[in-house]
Amino acid sequence: MKLAYSSASPYVRKVMIVALECGLADRIEKVPTAVRPDQPNTALGRDNPLMKVPTLTTDGGEVLFDSRVICAYLDSLHSGRKLIPEAGGARWKALRLEAQGDGMTDAGILVRYESTLRPENLRWKEWIDGQTLKVMQGLDALEKEPEQLAGDLTVGQIAIACGIGWMQFRSIFGDLFAGKPKLKAWFDRMSERPSFKATIPA
Amino acid sequence: MKLAYSSASPYVRKVMIVALECGLADRIEKVPTAVRPDQPNTALGRDNPLMKVPTLTTDGGEVLFDSRVICAYLDSLHSGRKLIPEAGGARWKALRLEAQGDGMTDAGILVRYESTLRPENLRWKEWIDGQTLKVMQGLDALEKEPEQLAGDLTVGQIAIACGIGWMQFRSIFGDLFAGKPKLKAWFDRMSERPSFKATIPA
Repeated sequence: MKLAYSSASPYVRKVMIVALECGLADRIEKVPTAVRPDQPNTALGRDNPLMKVPTLTTDGGEVLFDSRVICAYLDSLHSGRKLIPEAGGARWKALRLEAQGDGMTDAGILVRYESTLRPENLRWKEWIDGQTLKVMQGLDALEKEPEQLAGDLTVGQIAIACGIGWMQFRSIFGDLFAGKPKLKAWFDRMSERPSFKATIPA
Repeated sequence: MKLAYSSASPYVRKVMIVALECGLADRIEKVPTAVRPDQPNTALGRDNPLMKVPTLTTDGGEVLFDSRVICAYLDSLHSGRKLIPEAGGARWKALRLEAQGDGMTDAGILVRYESTLRPENLRWKEWIDGQTLKVMQGLDALEKEPEQLAGDLTVGQIAIACGIGWMQFRSIFGDLFAGKPKLKAWFDRMSERPSFKATIPA
């Protein structure tokens, strides 16, 4: 398999962590790929019209995106314990948590674009405030209901940890864990996993 | 089930079309909910920290989001033909198409925010151009490979049609079908389905 790849992307990291946890990482060839919203990568656009990483080309030549679809595909390729539980309440809990992690990350990315890429005289405070609130409420909800993060590793926990890790890497919001000791302890434990250590953004 | 609802949202429409196609619509109570990125709906934030519609509360009191998770949940509640094929190539084709439809819709929404909500003196042409290109490449890819849209109805086709329907409703990009007779014929056929007619944005 070939993966359009950027080590700084939280969604690429999510895919690589899933690949490592599922024992599939050595079947993935990483293809370094630059994406910026103001500099369209039209070469990538031939495979993925959205011009986003990660984009996976399977051994059969099928192109898959986005990270949720790729993670689900990888999880279908092995016979070990699944990162996406196959049915029942555990499945919906994991997928909802993934959506929360991805949504917080999307909001963080929009804040970063607004406060770094966009020309300074075109920035809109209400936009930054609104997206920031999504991230902060997401973190608050996890601290208030730590059982959301409990249990065996799922793609949901991976999505949350990749989002937090990326926001730390980009230093967008200051200390994400102020007043959140439970969330911090959980994140510190996640960060000890070999799959997380092997995918620290560079 | 209760659904935080706005008739103008393409993602709410996607969920309602899935509910109608699966025979579940009469089990869903619609709760009118206003969302705007510059006017955070903190009441909705108590259920969904991302403050987005659709947000579903199940009969068991679990909160589910986003539209992908809700559509998959609804598709699990009935024993008829599934809108998300359960395995194999058909599954990945449908989920990839859903990701493409959602991604095109996300890009269209960002263009609309930029060109209507954002104060006029803070708009950035490169941003609009980059997001517009994602939509146009997505439409081009569907015209070039109409087999992507062929076969029994899936959540992928629904996502594409809701995105196109919403862009027409908001008149963001002019004629989406210029030079795309195959895509137009497909969309016209989709628009004839009772589930689409019952969910036209108002």
